[in-house]
Parts: sequence; structure tokens; C-alpha cells
Amino acid sequence: MRVYFDNAATTAMDDRVIEAMLPFMKQHYGNPSSVHSHGREVRSAIEKARKKVAELLNASPAEIFFTSGGTEADNTALVCGMETHGITHAITSPIEHHAVLHTLEECAKKGKVKLSLLEVNEKGEVNLDQLKALLEKHPNSLVSLMHANNEIGTINDLEAIGQLAREHGAFFHCDTVQTMGHYVHDLKNLPVDSVVAGAHKFHGPKGAGFLFVRKEKKIHPFIYGGAQERNMRGGTENVIGIVGVAKALELAYEDMAAHRDHITAIKKAFKSQLEEAIPGLGFNGASADLDNSLYTVLNVSLPPSEENRGMLLFNLDLNGISASGGSACSSGATVGSHVLRALNHNPERESVRFSFSRFNTLEEVKYAVDKIKELYAVSV
Amino acid sequence: MRVYFDNAATTAMDDRVIEAMLPFMKQHYGNPSSVHSHGREVRSAIEKARKKVAELLNASPAEIFFTSGGTEADNTALVCGMETHGITHAITSPIEHHAVLHTLEECAKKGKVKLSLLEVNEKGEVNLDQLKALLEKHPNSLVSLMHANNEIGTINDLEAIGQLAREHGAFFHCDTVQTMGHYVHDLKNLPVDSVVAGAHKFHGPKGAGFLFVRKEKKIHPFIYGGAQERNMRGGTENVIGIVGVAKALELAYEDMAAHRDHITAIKKAFKSQLEEAIPGLGFNGASADLDNSLYTVLNVSLPPSEENRGMLLFNLDLNGISASGGSACSSGATVGSHVLRALNHNPERESVRFSFSRFNTLEEVKYAVDKIKELYAVSV
Repeated sequence: MRVYFDNAATTAMDDRVIEAMLPFMKQHYGNPSSVHSHGREVRSAIEKARKKVAELLNASPAEIFFTSGGTEADNTALVCGMETHGITHAITSPIEHHAVLHTLEECAKKGKVKLSLLEVNEKGEVNLDQLKALLEKHPNSLVSLMHANNEIGTINDLEAIGQLAREHGAFFHCDTVQTMGHYVHDLKNLPVDSVVAGAHKFHGPKGAGFLFVRKEKKIHPFIYGGAQERNMRGGTENVIGIVGVAKALELAYEDMAAHRDHITAIKKAFKSQLEEAIPGLGFNGASADLDNSLYTVLNVSLPPSEENRGMLLFNLDLNGISASGGSACSSGATVGSHVLRALNHNPERESVRFSFSRFNTLEEVKYAVDKIKELYAVSV
Repeated sequence: MRVYFDNAATTAMDDRVIEAMLPFMKQHYGNPSSVHSHGREVRSAIEKARKKVAELLNASPAEIFFTSGGTEADNTALVCGMETHGITHAITSPIEHHAVLHTLEECAKKGKVKLSLLEVNEKGEVNLDQLKALLEKHPNSLVSLMHANNEIGTINDLEAIGQLAREHGAFFHCDTVQTMGHYVHDLKNLPVDSVVAGAHKFHGPKGAGFLFVRKEKKIHPFIYGGAQERNMRGGTENVIGIVGVAKALELAYEDMAAHRDHITAIKKAFKSQLEEAIPGLGFNGASADLDNSLYTVLNVSLPPSEENRGMLLFNLDLNGISASGGSACSSGATVGSHVLRALNHNPERESVRFSFSRFNTLEEVKYAVDKIKELYAVSV
């Protein structure tokens, strides 16, 4: 049996998304910037996709810009948001995704911005009093805080953060990569200035995503070139990717409540069965809180075990189970999770992120729990 | 009949490229950065693609970085090439693609670099004496000159330019978007420091391309985030795009001579039949020189005609013929071609770029020439 419990890293594409993309691989190959019929039919598909995404998110099509994914969108919002609005102070947290953290660190290194990091508690919650104090000291800051943490499932209070940001005239960028397509984002009413998406986190294609930037906070382009994306991003559009983004988001919204119920049931079953199987099991961040954490992620902390020390993911993989130690984006590095480090977790314990999708089943849960139990049988 | 003569804007995907991409839409969905089996099978496909591209171009896999296309690759080479190597003077020409020109202009606007534009003659050839003089005055410059012009087909002498750049310690970036997959690039021996590709110019997917940067001229990333592309480009890889780039380039190299012969025959037939059909026909740039211009492009200059003034592309489109006035990337703008302006062409004449691919036929040539003759019958 092969079990894929790494859906926070990426998800399998939905067949209906593939179906929507195929005509733009096979028949409709024109350049959307061309004014002739070959181009116009493709242009029309892109603008339909933009309209669909905007409609689902309660935004204006003019606020949606397609990108090569969440990371490019994060870079664009951060770098160009600060440049356009003359911002020289940024506030973020040490447990943001590297797409945010490394980008801001690079801006700081170049001397373009001073960076303040918020304290986080053991659950991964940021210190809002400190945010308020920093904003009072530095109005016209950029605030970059994610919606939900990709490793430990902690959800930020976007209303509270956004209100603080607005009161102090700050630009609030929210990395929504893990929640887009899994939660409803009402962008007209949510006090955020920019959010991002990577389609592959919700059963769409890799290499495609989008950036939302509120009209009033317009920013300049990150990639210069042609007049694509209303002069906001040069480069011939990734048409199949754009069609895929919109279709995947449409499907996600269509059945969001049912998928949420299904995935929450998977997470709940996995949690309770694993707690029963492994004495001394713990959880990282807020992920064990079934009502108040990202419902797709459970980050477990297993008791120290000689047999599995540094080998647990490898042993799981040998048994056909795909899970991860943290963000896939930094899994090439052997330095471990910067998120767990910031939470002062015990490095003697094995931490594994299991993340679920609507394609997972209770049979897979049972199989995985049994295997983990076997792996720990020796040492327990 | 529908005739697609706008292959410099984009090309139809080859069925074999689509076939190569499909398994990575349907079965192999893992995140290439994940260390488990779902990830490893995809990582392996990316590294195979990188090896294939490197092999075809006589480069090292460590010199190939996959991007979202030619424009991102141009931005990366220019912005990061100058930043990394402390370059504050850039030399380019007024007839470069906007991916180069707008990027450099933006750097100049931000005060990061002083920009010098080379003179071009009526054929679109740059003044190499002026380049030499500028390099003598500003060693450690960046030189950005394209391989072949996308609108008028003029081919730059990369050997001569590259040697001048090397003699003066300059960084030589070459926008090879129009020639990649149509000409052999022996990057070990060509005196360039960086080149780029967009797969959709050679029957691959849109939204995927690559950047080559010579090992000795290593640059820092443009998009920050995870450790992807050997820490050179953050963001989950566009796996289907990357597989498509490599397959398209492989097919292009496999049959390059035959395709070149076929397309040259198409261009030659179109040129001679159109010359016969339209008295007073002219050509822009070097494109009429069958031996010394980009063999995929013919930019024709038609005599003034009341009936077709500003309407020729529209009239062609009505007759099923897709061609363009210049770069598709700027066709949204109504300002006309910056390339033709730089060449001081007569704005009273109608200029149309016809560009060909291996999928075009002599029947299409005849049809198009007949239609153009009809359109001009009234006024001639």
C-alpha cells in the first residue's frame, strides 16, 4: 500500500483540472497577447479564469495577477509592496515560510528594510501586543504574517492583525498558500492588502498561482517585460497553468464543506488511533486542536526511540508512507525545521508532519498507524 | 483555411511533448523537494530534464536553472548579474525585446545602473565600434544583446560581441529566446555568460523555460524561498513545464537541419510569391536575407494602401491568417513596434511580421499570398 500523507507539500491533481487544461495543450496554442483569432481565444480563457478566481474570492478581476506560484507571488508582494509604498520597516514572524522569510531577510541584507521578528509561543501564536507596539513605533510598516502555518497548523487571527495594520497605516501581506482552496477568503471584507496562492496545494498544477493586491495598494511589477497581466508581470502567460488554477479553485469552493468534513474526520481518526498506539505521543504547534488549527495538518511529536532516531521518515517511506519533517521547500537542507526550532521543541523527539487531502481514506489511516506502531514496537 | 504565421509569438505544442508531460499531471504528483518516494520519482525527472538540456547545449547541469520562461530568465540574468558582480553600467540596443529593455530601464530608473544604447543601422545591426569604445570607457559593464531579433530577424555576431566583452571583463547576457531550439548553441565554446529560453518558442509549453549562467559568473537568486534549483530559485518546480522544456528541446535538436530546410523553403516561397504579387514590396531589417537572418521570420513592408491602412492585420485575421505587427508581448499597446521605430521605417507603409514553423506548408503560403494580393487588388 502507498499512502500519501504529505498534502501540505503538494496534492495530486484533480482529473477535472487536467481535463480543463488539455485543450490548451492540444488545440488552443495561440499567444494570449496576439490580437488575431489564435490569440483571442486564449486571451478569453485567461480573462475567464481571472474573473472566476476574483468571483470566488469576492475580489475584482483587476486585483488578481497570475504568477508562477506562491513563492513568486510572495516575492512580488513583499519586494514591490515595500518599494512602491516607500516602506523601510517590516514585521514578520520566525515561523513564516521561507518564501517570505528569506525574501525579507534578503531585503534587510541589502539595506532596503529593517526587519522585526515577532515572538511566538509554543503553539506558534504571534504576540499581538508586540505587533501593536512595533506598529506604534513604526507606522507605514509592512506586516507579513501567514494565514495558517504549513508545518504546525497554527491559524493566525487575520481580523485582529489586519485591523492593527489598518489602524497604523501598514501594508498587510498574508501568505495564504496553505489555506487557499481550503477556507473561504472573502477578500472584500478581510482586512488584508495582498494574499497569494499556489494551485498545487489544492489539486491544481505546480508552477501556477496568483497574487491578489487590493486596488488601493497597487504595486509595481516584479518581473519586467511585455504588457501581460495589465502591465504587472512580463512574460507569455502560463496558459495551461492559469486555466488549471481557476478550475482547481472552482472545484475547491464547490465542495469545500464536504471536503473539510472528510479531511477533519481523517485527521481526527489518525490522531486518536495514533495516541492509542504510541504512549507518550505529543503534538507540535496548534495542530492537535481539531477546532482551531489547519484541518489538513497534524504535526506529531514521537517519543525518543533509538531505532527511529533521524530515520523515522525513511522508515515510513520504506513502508510506503509519504510524510515529511517540515516544509518540502527546505527538505533538501539537513538543518531541520526552522519552525520547530522557533518553538523550542525537544530535538530528541521525532517530529513528523502528516497532512491530508480529500483523496485520503480511513483505510490509509489504519495502515499508517499500524506501521508506526510496528516501528515503535521495539523501543516502547 | 486557418493559417498560423505567428510562430515567433508562440508555437503549437508538439504531441510528443504533451505525451511526455501527461504522466506528471496524472500519476507522478509528488513535490520534487520531498524526500519520500512520491517526491523522489519527480525529482529524478527534473534532474534528467536538466541533464538533457545541458547535454544538448554543451553545458554543465549545474549551469541550467529552470524558470517560468524567457522573461523571468532575462530579468534574473540582468538584475542579479549586475547586483552580484557589482556592475553599474549596462550596454544594450534599442531593438532588444522588452524583457531586456524594460528591465534595464527600470534598473536605470532606480539609479542602480547607467544605461548606454548602441546605435543600430537600418538592418538592425549594432555598431560594434561603439560597443568597443563603451567597453574601453566602462570595463566591468553588462552587455545585453540578443541572438536574433524577434521582429526583423537580424542576427548578431555573438562571437565578435562576446570576444569584445571578454577582453574588457564585461558580463555578456544574450537573449536567445528566438533562436533556442532553432540553432545549435554550443555554450562551452560560445563567449556568452548567460542565455535564456522559453519553451513555447520551440513547440514546448508556455510558462516554462530556463536560464543558463556560466559557472564562473555565478549569480544570486531573483526569487527567494525554498532551496529549489540548487538554491537559485525558490518555489515548487513547474514539473510538467520542466519535462516539457527538455522534451521540446530534445525534439528540436533531433531534427534541426531538416526543420531548418523546411522552414527556409517556406520563407523563400512566401518571399518570392509575395514579391511577385505585390509591386513595391519591401522588407524590414535583415529578414529578407535568406542566408543571414533568422530563418523563421520575414518582416514585410507593404506599400501605402488606403483600404488597409492600420487594418491589414485585422483584414488578414478576417481571412483566417494569423500574423503580427511586432512582438506579441507589446501588442496590447497601440504604440506600434519600438523595433521598427528604431530603424526609422516609413510609418506610411504597413509592416507585418510573418513567422514560420515546421508545421507550416506551401499550401498555406499560397493561400496567404493570394489573400494579401486580393486585399491589395483595390489599391494597386
